[in-house]
Amino acid sequence: MKVICNQSELMNALNIALRAVPSKTSYPVLECFFLKADAEQLVITTNDMEIGIETRLSCRVDTPGKIAINARIFSDIVRKLPEDIVFLETDKDYIMMITCGKAKFKISGTSGEDFPPLPDYEKTNVVKMSQYTLKEMISKTIFAISANENNAIMTGECFEVEGDKLRITALDGHRIAIRNIQLRAESDKCQVIIPGKTLNEISKIMSGNIDDEVCICFMDRQVIFEFGTTVVVSRLIEGKYYNVNPMINSSYLTKVIVNKKDFTDCIDRAILLVKESEKRPVIIDIRDGVMSFNMNSSIGTMDEDITAMKEGNDLTIGFNPKFLMDALRAVEDEDITLYLTTAKQPCFLRDAEDNYIYLILPVNFVGR
Amino acid sequence: MKVICNQSELMNALNIALRAVPSKTSYPVLECFFLKADAEQLVITTNDMEIGIETRLSCRVDTPGKIAINARIFSDIVRKLPEDIVFLETDKDYIMMITCGKAKFKISGTSGEDFPPLPDYEKTNVVKMSQYTLKEMISKTIFAISANENNAIMTGECFEVEGDKLRITALDGHRIAIRNIQLRAESDKCQVIIPGKTLNEISKIMSGNIDDEVCICFMDRQVIFEFGTTVVVSRLIEGKYYNVNPMINSSYLTKVIVNKKDFTDCIDRAILLVKESEKRPVIIDIRDGVMSFNMNSSIGTMDEDITAMKEGNDLTIGFNPKFLMDALRAVEDEDITLYLTTAKQPCFLRDAEDNYIYLILPVNFVGR
Repeated sequence: MKVICNQSELMNALNIALRAVPSKTSYPVLECFFLKADAEQLVITTNDMEIGIETRLSCRVDTPGKIAINARIFSDIVRKLPEDIVFLETDKDYIMMITCGKAKFKISGTSGEDFPPLPDYEKTNVVKMSQYTLKEMISKTIFAISANENNAIMTGECFEVEGDKLRITALDGHRIAIRNIQLRAESDKCQVIIPGKTLNEISKIMSGNIDDEVCICFMDRQVIFEFGTTVVVSRLIEGKYYNVNPMINSSYLTKVIVNKKDFTDCIDRAILLVKESEKRPVIIDIRDGVMSFNMNSSIGTMDEDITAMKEGNDLTIGFNPKFLMDALRAVEDEDITLYLTTAKQPCFLRDAEDNYIYLILPVNFVGR
Repeated sequence: MKVICNQSELMNALNIALRAVPSKTSYPVLECFFLKADAEQLVITTNDMEIGIETRLSCRVDTPGKIAINARIFSDIVRKLPEDIVFLETDKDYIMMITCGKAKFKISGTSGEDFPPLPDYEKTNVVKMSQYTLKEMISKTIFAISANENNAIMTGECFEVEGDKLRITALDGHRIAIRNIQLRAESDKCQVIIPGKTLNEISKIMSGNIDDEVCICFMDRQVIFEFGTTVVVSRLIEGKYYNVNPMINSSYLTKVIVNKKDFTDCIDRAILLVKESEKRPVIIDIRDGVMSFNMNSSIGTMDEDITAMKEGNDLTIGFNPKFLMDALRAVEDEDITLYLTTAKQPCFLRDAEDNYIYLILPVNFVGR
C-alpha cells in the first residue's frame, strides 16, 4: 500500500473511526484501524462488535493495499504530524512507514485478514433528516434511558416511524421522554430499539449542522446511519418496546404555567441538598399564583417561592429533583406548562403540539 | 452573626479560601470555613495544617459573630444563589440561615472554637514583586520538583534572596531548573524551601496581573504570601537545600542554537513512542548544521532531522524526552541555546543573562 493524503483530512477521518475502537477487548484486531486503499480513496473501518464505522477520504493511491494498524498509536502519531502531506507506505511484512515533512515513523501492523467486516445492507426503509435535528432529539431524550443493564430494553431508545412522523421514546421506569419529529417524506412503518451507546457515539461524530443530512436505514437486526463520507452500523436491542400510549393521556386536574428559568434555578438549588445515601424529594406546593419549593435533608433545608399561573386544584406533590432538572433542561421554551392530577399520579411537561412530552412519576413523602 | 454582602464578592472569597480545605481529614473542623464578622468585614479562614488562608470581604455587619460552617456545602449553596444581596444570619445553636432573593437555606454549623488559628507574624524580611512574575517563575520551575515524598527537600522549591536578587531552584536528581529574578529593592539574605503544593495553590489564587503585587515574608518556619485581601501562610520544608552552584559551571565543548518550535515538535513526536514500562531515550546526533533525532521503542521508530547552528565538537547524546520537553516549554525564546560537554555530562539550556538555567542529565544508551 502506498498512499498520499492530507494530514488534517486523515486526522478527521481517524477521529470519527476511533469512536468504534473498544478500550478493552480480548480480540486484538479490534484495537486496530482496518485501512484499505483503492480507487483514489482510503477506507478506514473500525468495529467494536456493537457498532461498526466505515469512513473514507480522498487521496492519491499509488499502490492499493490493506493493513490493520493499532488505532491509538496510529492516531496519536498522525495527530502530532505537521499540517502537511502524509505518505503512508507498507511493506510485505506489514511495517508501515509514515512520513510527513522531515518526520519519519515506522510501526508494525498486521494483514487484518481477521478483521470482522461490516455487514452488507440494502437501502430500504430509509428516513432522512438534518443532523442537527437528530442530534438535538437524541440529547433531549437520552437522559431518560436506564443505565441498568438488567433491563436491556430500557438502555435503548425506541425509534418509531409511521407515515411522515418519527417518535423517539426513552424511559427508565420513573419517567418517560418523548419527542415527535415531522419528517420530510412518508416512510414505511417500523419500530426499533437503538442502544443508547450508539446514539451517544453518532451524536459525537455527526457535525450537527442544520444543512448536513443524515440517512437512517432501519433493518431487522441493525440500524445504519449514513452521513458525509461515514457509515455507522449498529446492532439493535431485541425485544418488544413498552406501549407508552395508555400512560400519556391528556386529562389533568391542575395546570401550571411557570417561567422555565425560575423553575430551573429553584431545582438547581434544591439539588444542592441531595445526598446520594438519602433520597429526599423536593416538595412542591401549588397554590393560586405561586409554587413553593421545600427541600429537607440531613445537609439542611431550602425554601423558595416562585410566581406561577395555576388553573384547577391546589396540590402538594414530591419529586426527585434530578428528574425534574433533566426534563427542564431538555425544553427550549421560555415558559413551560405542567399538567398534574394527584400527588400519586404522573406529572406531564408538554407543549401544545406534543413536540415533546416528559412524564415524571412523583415520589411519596411523609408530612412536611 | 448577621451579615449582608454581595453574592459574587462572597463567592470569590470562598473560592480562594476553598484551596486550603483538605479533601480528607480526620479533624472535621478543618472541612469548614471559619467565618468571623466584625468591623464591616467578613473574614474567612481555612487551614489544612500545611497551608492556612485568610481572606476578607467588605460587607455590612449588623451583628458581629463567629461560626464554622462546612466549606463544600456553604460554597455550593452560595455558587447557586442569584447575583444579588446575600443575608447570612446565625442563631445561638449555630444554625445559619442564608437568604438571597426568594431562596432561603438553613444549614448547621458549629462554634468553631476548635478551629486552629493562623499564626501571628511580623512583617520582617519582606520581598515584593508582581503577581505575574511570581506565577510565571513558579510555573517555569515547578515541573522539576520531585513527586517522591521520600526526599522531602526535593518536593519543594528553594527561594534564595541575596541583595536585590531572588533565585528559585527546583530539582529532582535528574535535572535542575533555576530562575533568577531582579527585585525592586535589596532585602536581607535568606534561603527557604517552600513546599511545591503551597506554590501550586498560591499560583491558582493569585490574579497573575502584572500590576497586582504580592508580598512574601520569609520567617524561620513559615512563609507568608500577602496579596489583595488574602494572606496565605505555609509551613516550610525543614533541612538544608542542595548547593547547586558547583554543578552549573559554564564550560562546554559543544554549543547548539536551534529553533525552539522545531525542537519541541520533534520531541513531542518522539514522546509518542515512549512506553511507561520501558524507558527509552531519544538519541540526538549533533553535527554541523543539523540535529538528528532517533527514538526506538517496542511501539516503533521515529527519525527526524532539524537544522541547527553548531559550534565545537560533534556529539551523540541520549535524553529522557519528557525532561527535554519540560525545559523547552518553560523557555519563551524563539531560538534556544544548548551547551554540552560529553555524552555522560549534563546538558544546559540557558540564556546569556542567566535569567534561566535548565540542567538535564543525559541517559545512557546502547549503540543505535
